[in-house]
Amino acid sequence: MQRRDLIRGLGLGAAAAATAACSRRDGEARVAGPGQRFEWKLVTTWPPNFPGLGTGAVEFARRIEACSGGRLSIRVFGDGEFIPAFEVFDAVASGTAEMAHGAAYYWKGKIAAAPFFCAVPFGLTAQEMNAWLYHGGGLELWQEAYAPFGLLPLPCGSSGCQMGGWFRRELRSLADLQGLKMRMPGLGGEVLARAGATPVTLPGSEIFTALQTGAIDATEWVGPYNDLAFGLHKAAKFYYYPGWHEPGSTLELIVNRQAFDSLPADLQEIVRTTAAAINDRMLAEFTARNAEALQTLVNEHGVELRPFPPDVLARLQELSVEVLQEAAGRDALFARVLESWQTFRRRMDPYLAVAERAMLNTRGG
Amino acid sequence: MQRRDLIRGLGLGAAAAATAACSRRDGEARVAGPGQRFEWKLVTTWPPNFPGLGTGAVEFARRIEACSGGRLSIRVFGDGEFIPAFEVFDAVASGTAEMAHGAAYYWKGKIAAAPFFCAVPFGLTAQEMNAWLYHGGGLELWQEAYAPFGLLPLPCGSSGCQMGGWFRRELRSLADLQGLKMRMPGLGGEVLARAGATPVTLPGSEIFTALQTGAIDATEWVGPYNDLAFGLHKAAKFYYYPGWHEPGSTLELIVNRQAFDSLPADLQEIVRTTAAAINDRMLAEFTARNAEALQTLVNEHGVELRPFPPDVLARLQELSVEVLQEAAGRDALFARVLESWQTFRRRMDPYLAVAERAMLNTRGG
Repeated sequence: MQRRDLIRGLGLGAAAAATAACSRRDGEARVAGPGQRFEWKLVTTWPPNFPGLGTGAVEFARRIEACSGGRLSIRVFGDGEFIPAFEVFDAVASGTAEMAHGAAYYWKGKIAAAPFFCAVPFGLTAQEMNAWLYHGGGLELWQEAYAPFGLLPLPCGSSGCQMGGWFRRELRSLADLQGLKMRMPGLGGEVLARAGATPVTLPGSEIFTALQTGAIDATEWVGPYNDLAFGLHKAAKFYYYPGWHEPGSTLELIVNRQAFDSLPADLQEIVRTTAAAINDRMLAEFTARNAEALQTLVNEHGVELRPFPPDVLARLQELSVEVLQEAAGRDALFARVLESWQTFRRRMDPYLAVAERAMLNTRGG
Repeated sequence: MQRRDLIRGLGLGAAAAATAACSRRDGEARVAGPGQRFEWKLVTTWPPNFPGLGTGAVEFARRIEACSGGRLSIRVFGDGEFIPAFEVFDAVASGTAEMAHGAAYYWKGKIAAAPFFCAVPFGLTAQEMNAWLYHGGGLELWQEAYAPFGLLPLPCGSSGCQMGGWFRRELRSLADLQGLKMRMPGLGGEVLARAGATPVTLPGSEIFTALQTGAIDATEWVGPYNDLAFGLHKAAKFYYYPGWHEPGSTLELIVNRQAFDSLPADLQEIVRTTAAAINDRMLAEFTARNAEALQTLVNEHGVELRPFPPDVLARLQELSVEVLQEAAGRDALFARVLESWQTFRRRMDPYLAVAERAMLNTRGG
C-alpha cells in the first residue's frame, strides 16, 4: 500500500516510469505474489463507456483485475478524461499511461501502414483479420511497425463490418457522388475524393448536427448499434450498405513496452490472454446488438435500407486499389504490409467462397 | 509440494474430489497465493495433438498455467490416453477429470438439445454462434442444460464453416443421393436419411479406408485443414460445399462445477477468460489453415471443388426444419432452445445480408 501512495504522490508522467522501474526490480527479485501490485492507466479514444468500444475497454480492465487477483489494477479513462483521443498513442509511447485502447488507423500520420491493422477499403472481415493477424504474419508486421515507438500492439476487439453510411438523398449512380459532402476519415475519404465526392473530417460529437443542418450531405459512423444511439436516422433517411471502407475494423490495445516488460510473466500472459478474450467478446456483442438495432431502425423508424449501386461499388473498389498502390510507392513498410495482406486476401477469397460466404448465401435465401 | 504428492498417491477418481475439497477450504481461508496449487486433468475427444482441436486444448492448458503462475496446472489427455472420447462427459460429471474439451453434439443421447451448442444443419456461422451464446441467451440455455449433470460449459473454439464432404462420384441432383452411403453423424445424418441416403457412423480413424475401399460412397469430416491431413483426397475426387450440416461448429470446455467452485475467484476468472481467448484464436487458426489447405488440395492434388446442386440444398434445408421441429415435439428443453435460436437467426439473416455477407459478395467478385 505504501508504494501505491508513493506513486500517487508523483506526477502522472513520472508515475508510469516509477511503476515500471519498481516492478522490473520486483519481477526479477521474487515470484509474483499477493504483495506485488501494479496500478496502470488505460487511456482510450472513445467517449467514456461508449457502447461496445468504451464498455469493451472497461471489461478488459475488469477481467485483468479479476484474473490477477487485484495485482494489476487498471483505471480506464475516456476521451479527454485524462488524454485527448488522438494523443493516446504518444501518451503511451512516453509512459504517461501504460496502455491505450483505440484504432490503428488513427495513427496513419505517424505510420503510413497503420490502417491495415484496423481497416482499409475493401479489406478483410473480422474473421479474416484475426486469421491474418494471428496466423498470416499480420501481427508480426504490426508489432514491427509500433516497435520504434516503444509500443506493443495487440488485437483487442472488432466492430465487425460497418455500414456504408447515412445519406440525405438517394444515391442512384456514380453521378450522384459528384460534389457530395460526406463525413469519412482515413483512406476511405481519399477514395471518396477520387470518386468526385468531398470528404469531410468531423469528430463523432459533431456529426449529428452537421447532417441535420445539411452542412454535410452524408456521413458514415459505425454500424446500427452505435448509429441508432447517435440518432442519425433523425437526420437522414437513406442507410446504405455495405461498409466498403471498413469491412471489419479491428480495435487495438497498445502497451508501453517497458511497462509490459516490467510485469512478471504471469501478468504478461494475463494481458495477452485478456486482449484475445475481449477480441472474441466484442465482435459477438456488435454482431448481436447491430442485428437488434437494424430491426429497430427499419421497423420502428422507417429507415430506407439501400445497397450501393453496382457502378458505385465497382468504381470505389478500383480507386481503393489505386490508393493502396500509390501509398506503397511512398513507404517501404506500407509496401511490405500490402504484399502480406494481398497474398493473404487472394488465398482467403476462394476459401470463404466455399465456406462462410457460400453458407450465408445458401441459408439466407 | 506435499499436497501434490498426496493427491498423486490417490486413485485418479478420488484425486479430483480431494483437490476440490482441499482447495475449497483454501479458497475460503486465504487469498490465492503462490503456495496454493491445483493439478487438474483435461480429457479431450480428439486424438492427441490433433491439428487445431487437440492443439487448441494444449494451448488452453498452457495459457492457464502461464496466467496462474503455475497455480493451476492442467494435464491434457487425448482420446483414449485416459478416458475414451465419448466418455469424457461422464468422466467430468463424476469428477474423474476436472475438465473436458469436445463438442456438445456428442451428448445428444443425454441432452436432446445439445447439438444447438455445437452445430445443427443450416444453423449459425461461428460469428453468429458467439453472438447467440454471449448476447442472445444461448450460453444461459447451455449452462441450464448441463447443470443437472454438475457441469459448467463454456465456448472454447470453433472450426468455422465445415465442408460438405468427399464424394467418389459426382452428385448432380437429388436422385444421386438415393441409397448413397455417406458417413455423417448426428442431426445431419438424420436429415440425409430422410433425403433417401444411408448415413453411416464411423470414427475418424476408419473413414479413409472405408472411403478408399468403397465401403462408403462419401464422407464428411471437418474442413480442408483436417481433411488434407487425413489424405481424403486420395480416396475420393469430388469435394462439395458448403457444409450445410455444420455451418460453424463451436467446441466446448466442460468443467466439473464442484471443482470450479473450489477455485479461488482469480483462477475462476482465468479459466473463463482463457476459454474466450481460445475461442478467438482457434477460429483464426482454422480460417488461415483451411484457406492454405484448400489451395493445396485444388492446385497440387487436382481436387474437383463442386457446389451442391440447388435442388439438393433446398431439399436438405426443408428436411432440416422438419427434423428440428419433430425433436422439439419430443423434448421441452429442445423446444425452448429452438425458439431462442430461431428468433436469433431470424434477426441475424437480414443483418448479415447488409454486413459481412454483402461485403464478401461485393469484394469477392
